[in-house]
Amino acid sequence: MENVKLYPDERIDDLLTNEMKIIQSKEVFCFSLDAVLLARFASLPLKRGRIVDLCTGNGVIPLLLSARTECPIDAVEIQERLYDMAKRNVELNGLKNRISIYHGDVKEAYKFLGNGGYDALTCNPPYMPVIGGEKNKSSHVAIARHEILLTLEEVIQASSRLVRTGGKVAYVHRSGRLGDLIAIMRKYRIEPKRMRLVYPKAEAEANMVLIEGIRDGKPDLRVLPPLIVYKEDGTYCDEIYSIYYGDRTEE
Amino acid sequence: MENVKLYPDERIDDLLTNEMKIIQSKEVFCFSLDAVLLARFASLPLKRGRIVDLCTGNGVIPLLLSARTECPIDAVEIQERLYDMAKRNVELNGLKNRISIYHGDVKEAYKFLGNGGYDALTCNPPYMPVIGGEKNKSSHVAIARHEILLTLEEVIQASSRLVRTGGKVAYVHRSGRLGDLIAIMRKYRIEPKRMRLVYPKAEAEANMVLIEGIRDGKPDLRVLPPLIVYKEDGTYCDEIYSIYYGDRTEE
Repeated sequence: MENVKLYPDERIDDLLTNEMKIIQSKEVFCFSLDAVLLARFASLPLKRGRIVDLCTGNGVIPLLLSARTECPIDAVEIQERLYDMAKRNVELNGLKNRISIYHGDVKEAYKFLGNGGYDALTCNPPYMPVIGGEKNKSSHVAIARHEILLTLEEVIQASSRLVRTGGKVAYVHRSGRLGDLIAIMRKYRIEPKRMRLVYPKAEAEANMVLIEGIRDGKPDLRVLPPLIVYKEDGTYCDEIYSIYYGDRTEE
Repeated sequence: MENVKLYPDERIDDLLTNEMKIIQSKEVFCFSLDAVLLARFASLPLKRGRIVDLCTGNGVIPLLLSARTECPIDAVEIQERLYDMAKRNVELNGLKNRISIYHGDVKEAYKFLGNGGYDALTCNPPYMPVIGGEKNKSSHVAIARHEILLTLEEVIQASSRLVRTGGKVAYVHRSGRLGDLIAIMRKYRIEPKRMRLVYPKAEAEANMVLIEGIRDGKPDLRVLPPLIVYKEDGTYCDEIYSIYYGDRTEE
């Protein structure tokens, strides 16, 4: 474990995967269940290939992916404060030779990452629509959460440029946006191929969706078994429990 | 109960709803769980409004809908043998003043049903792709099941012409076609608003999807709780059990 600088608002949490640690900050960025689920859901090349994560925040997804693949992982973050945190997270876990963090705009990522060079792409994009006044629009949390600097269509357009034909693109998003997700993915030739709905409880409506498409793939969407987060008694279901507290062998 | 003609291959089954009966034929057409689920899933006007069912087969969906609404229901079937069976099913249940069966092509339905006159539309379209040789393409079962006379895009285009702005369009289809469904619905201005995935078991991939859109609606898709057909012990889950054997009050 390397020695890295910490800002006053930051803390180091256990990532509960390969004994990794992660720097977080409530004021700036903390990862959530979405990121963890996406990092498990995405299809990855295991030994040969290139992977990229967009809107990486503090780098939680590349860290988690590094436990599942030997391939190099690039990651892009537009906010300097988060880019810096992600870089320190890579150092903290001794992964500088496997994960490269880029400071830049996803919309321009093809300029520094090249066109069509990736085999797999992940992205946990800003979820929330931009509504109301200008208040908080410049905060780190607001930019990471809301479509202020990057719309869903821009994310998908950028993704489509970065992956090769046959490359895989995986997102986590609010299930309310599924109509947009599917229609826009197809518009940019990323054919939806695998999807999983996340339901807070067995009797509840879904609130999240994991979806993966293939660049220039043929239409045929597999809908994986429902992921139900909480049991009736309010405790985590077995799958979520194992994600957080061990048994990460499941693929 | 009226006295209606039966062909040698036909039988009369209980519909288990409002004591209705239904004529079926293994050689020509039998309804399945899909139709029953769609008839429960679709949003309907209750007292005022017009409803239409496309690809009605033996008329099972209008019969089931008639138990949920007082509105008149029109239905379209292209196969003369099934059109005739649907008409006899309406007579058999004394519903001639509420359900009208039309013999015609869904693609031309706007010519005899008018443009934009319906508040709700249901359709359990032919599911299966057309593959292989010409064999069986003329059989009644093949035409009802495969996209021989009517493609998914044609169904959706026809639906879009028949409903008014704000009108609701509900389909049941194989979940593998969800990418096509959503993208084509949006192409014809039917915005997906409610969806329910049907999983054979809790641990299985979905095989069916119920989806409802609104003509010219705003994007925001509700994903209803998962519908899991069988329990682990192989018996029907409570919801399916109640559909088949009583308690049909749930909306």
